[in-house]
Amino acid sequence: MIDKQALNEYESRYRTTLINSLAGVKQAILIGTKSTDGYSNLAIFNSLIHIGANPPLWGLIFRPATVKRDTLNNILETQQYTINYVATRDYQKAHQTSAKYKKTISEFDVCGFTECYHPHFHAPFVAEAPVKIAMKMEQKIDISINGTILLIGSIQHIDMDETLISPDGFVALDKAQTLACAGLDAYYETYLMDRLVYAKPR
Amino acid sequence: MIDKQALNEYESRYRTTLINSLAGVKQAILIGTKSTDGYSNLAIFNSLIHIGANPPLWGLIFRPATVKRDTLNNILETQQYTINYVATRDYQKAHQTSAKYKKTISEFDVCGFTECYHPHFHAPFVAEAPVKIAMKMEQKIDISINGTILLIGSIQHIDMDETLISPDGFVALDKAQTLACAGLDAYYETYLMDRLVYAKPR
Repeated sequence: MIDKQALNEYESRYRTTLINSLAGVKQAILIGTKSTDGYSNLAIFNSLIHIGANPPLWGLIFRPATVKRDTLNNILETQQYTINYVATRDYQKAHQTSAKYKKTISEFDVCGFTECYHPHFHAPFVAEAPVKIAMKMEQKIDISINGTILLIGSIQHIDMDETLISPDGFVALDKAQTLACAGLDAYYETYLMDRLVYAKPR
Repeated sequence: MIDKQALNEYESRYRTTLINSLAGVKQAILIGTKSTDGYSNLAIFNSLIHIGANPPLWGLIFRPATVKRDTLNNILETQQYTINYVATRDYQKAHQTSAKYKKTISEFDVCGFTECYHPHFHAPFVAEAPVKIAMKMEQKIDISINGTILLIGSIQHIDMDETLISPDGFVALDKAQTLACAGLDAYYETYLMDRLVYAKPR
């Protein structure tokens, strides 16, 4: 049993790795943004949160003191960002976007992804991404307990192979071999075991 | 391309399935609670969010109008809950906890899980769970944009096979064959492809 005292006494990096990886697998996503003065940014995140479907709203968690600062600044400046799923074969390139590059350096260029654009949308997409989603910032919520930020955006459009969508709306992301991750450095493949029917008391 | 107008025009259940499943895989967890008048509750969730490691804080998203109402009420009453990971072989039992049972019926009993307790902790754990985590509620944040709730709790203790923890703190949840899920009904296995070193500009 790891009790509260043991958790408190762990060396800081050990505790971060433990608590972060223990939270389990999540979809790996690349967030594309562009500052008002024209610098593109691309950064890997794993904190995508489903907030609601009507309207379609998703959240992201930002820790203010981290490497991801350019992403947050660009979103606050432009209210726009893109969510790009990662093909499993691109996991090493995606991980490299977590390095601390200067604002004037585009992670698209140095990490080997291709910037592309949709009409009437300022933020850049990842051409290699099997799913590309345009997002508009809707609400920024400051989490007072530890200074993190929950940023909520609405889905503007979705660009994907629509044959991945089942007749009932289910998206078979595993068929597109999209990357999952845990913690800050562990990358996973996922396999669909089963879909079950709506559960009723029995 | 699925644009905003198409999203708006989808039938409500289709849109819910699409947006929910598109958000990708997440760890499947069973939340154990017990009301002050002694009724146990167990419910499957997939909205576990890493908020921070120091102190160790995790969040959950609640939609007030859903089946999970007993869970939220019990947490607000007692400030305690447990997070229990699910062995992949138990996915059907875990899914059954999403059925709308009356408050007086324990999902532990009807879905085939065994209730167990740790000293000095009111909320019930799942004996079958490969990872059992005791949580204390810390903060409730109302998300005004759609009426959902972000509930943040702190980790009180962790009960797991500690041989799953690497020397650097990484928890190999895949070795414990823990269940992942997407949307409301799709269950996944996960496989670790690789862990990478901390990325630096190159």
